Amino acid sequence: MKLPTVFEKYRDEINAELKLSLAGRDLPLYDMMRYHLGWIDDNGNSAGDSAGKALRPTSCLLACEAVGGDYHRALPAATAIELVHNYSLIHDDIQDDDRERRHRPTVWSIYGKPQAINVGMAMRLLANAVLLRQTEYDIPLEKQLRIQHLIDDTSLRLIEGQYLDISYENHFDITMADYLEMIEKKTAALIACSFEVGSLLGTDDEQITGHIRDIGKNLGLAFQIKDDILGIWDNAGKTGKPFGNDIRHGKKTLPIVYILEKAGDGLREELISVYRNGTINNDGVVAVLRILESVDVQLQAQKMVERYCHEALEAIDKLALVPSAKCDLKEIARFLIERNF
Amino acid sequence: MKLPTVFEKYRDEINAELKLSLAGRDLPLYDMMRYHLGWIDDNGNSAGDSAGKALRPTSCLLACEAVGGDYHRALPAATAIELVHNYSLIHDDIQDDDRERRHRPTVWSIYGKPQAINVGMAMRLLANAVLLRQTEYDIPLEKQLRIQHLIDDTSLRLIEGQYLDISYENHFDITMADYLEMIEKKTAALIACSFEVGSLLGTDDEQITGHIRDIGKNLGLAFQIKDDILGIWDNAGKTGKPFGNDIRHGKKTLPIVYILEKAGDGLREELISVYRNGTINNDGVVAVLRILESVDVQLQAQKMVERYCHEALEAIDKLALVPSAKCDLKEIARFLIERNF
Repeated sequence: MKLPTVFEKYRDEINAELKLSLAGRDLPLYDMMRYHLGWIDDNGNSAGDSAGKALRPTSCLLACEAVGGDYHRALPAATAIELVHNYSLIHDDIQDDDRERRHRPTVWSIYGKPQAINVGMAMRLLANAVLLRQTEYDIPLEKQLRIQHLIDDTSLRLIEGQYLDISYENHFDITMADYLEMIEKKTAALIACSFEVGSLLGTDDEQITGHIRDIGKNLGLAFQIKDDILGIWDNAGKTGKPFGNDIRHGKKTLPIVYILEKAGDGLREELISVYRNGTINNDGVVAVLRILESVDVQLQAQKMVERYCHEALEAIDKLALVPSAKCDLKEIARFLIERNF
Repeated sequence: MKLPTVFEKYRDEINAELKLSLAGRDLPLYDMMRYHLGWIDDNGNSAGDSAGKALRPTSCLLACEAVGGDYHRALPAATAIELVHNYSLIHDDIQDDDRERRHRPTVWSIYGKPQAINVGMAMRLLANAVLLRQTEYDIPLEKQLRIQHLIDDTSLRLIEGQYLDISYENHFDITMADYLEMIEKKTAALIACSFEVGSLLGTDDEQITGHIRDIGKNLGLAFQIKDDILGIWDNAGKTGKPFGNDIRHGKKTLPIVYILEKAGDGLREELISVYRNGTINNDGVVAVLRILESVDVQLQAQKMVERYCHEALEAIDKLALVPSAKCDLKEIARFLIERNF
């Protein structure tokens, strides 16, 4: 399974913008960012370009094109959003005590948690510095200010989602509604924001930008549920995250919530009793897996992914968009259904 | 020793603005902020108003008045800056593993470090949400955008300072120039920003706003050096921080840097050998104190505080400012020299 070609389209320009955002910043603090972004190894040697999918900036630029805009105008915003996403990964790894991401040691595991907090925080603020470059394009001040606040506000929701995610760890009364609130904030909000910001930079038609945002939100929900599936059944071993991590952390990902809410009292109690035994070791992970697989939760979760993606696909179909971009948007939606990394 | 009356002048309005910034935000995440700000105890019971000096918002509002502006226009910015300052304290306590601040348990020591990271980050972003309220005043969009980016950029420098502060902990080749770079970023930048932003909202005269910023920078440097003194010789026991904390953490505060750079090889080696022994216990703290007091470093540090404050006082004198505000500015400068909390 390969990334659709639309992810290649803007890759070089996104990487160039990202590199520009760090250009001339000499403190080792910024090398820690370069390490996280995959540009250098932990000895400071060049290690190529960023390894991520760049889903968010790609979506942002594509949304701008789809509504008839020149995507170059959205490059600063797309870059800012990618930095917001990456800062959140750095802090997430600290919070979850995760030592590995994208098959590499995490920032904190190399530089320590105190400095990793700084790296994440500084990267988040760098995003706003990148937005300053919007002044180089012909973007009205009102719109610049609006985009700035939209990204800031989305960031705040992301942290609210992160708060909920952690606070759910020790609870078993988490409902599907709780879960959806959490992933809407933690994940879907920033993906929706990517689509909305891109479209705002391509058109003044608020109705279209609203539809585009909703498409992004549905794709964002699908993205997270698929992530939850891959967090448990990473059969291709491609996510770069250690096996059983989500289960070990007591994360209330969709498969777990499904058991808690829909699978009946027997399985529910069985699951809770595994967690109540204390720290989850390998046997615990296997026990949880057995429960999940006894009612084929993976299939149920995949159906939800498909439902959200199909809702997005229908909305894309209905909108009057630039044909080639419409086609690319659909390719992204279909990729999110099928992806195994 | 009491706070000068100028700190009373805007207190109620600053508190009202701060409370407004959190109004209607229901997630427990925001209660953790209310706890940090001193409004509630850790059981959620009302605990009065914020206990801090509010140096930064007071300076911001006063600077606005001093250049002939209506300070109400600066209330959102002043509040945003106070939130930036407070987020930095929350993260600082996590990074330094400090369990006590302002005579109360720190946020992380109650809610855990993962959530405390969220609390700090969310508070930092809340600052930008507060800035949105500038639209309610008659502030040109260019200026709104400029102030937004000034605060964001200052925040980034604050983190750079925080990075340097932590990275100095295990080094003994820290010079006075290194030290000044660190405190300029960690502390003086945000205080300078408070003055600059206030003045920008009161006048379009860039020459005056530049002078006001420089006054803030000098006061900020003085503030941090005084903090360093109080971090070691908190004779009144009023800072609310545990005794010997800075020494225990290996912080390169001014008294330590003075010994490292100016006190001659004998004392320098003696000091380094205390630190090289590993974790600093109470005996270590006493040994460091003995070294510092053998050459009366406290007096040298206090002289630096006075030098920066006098530079600020001279600059205040030279500027054409609203007389009552000029008087208040001088009161702040004199307070920073004398303060024991």
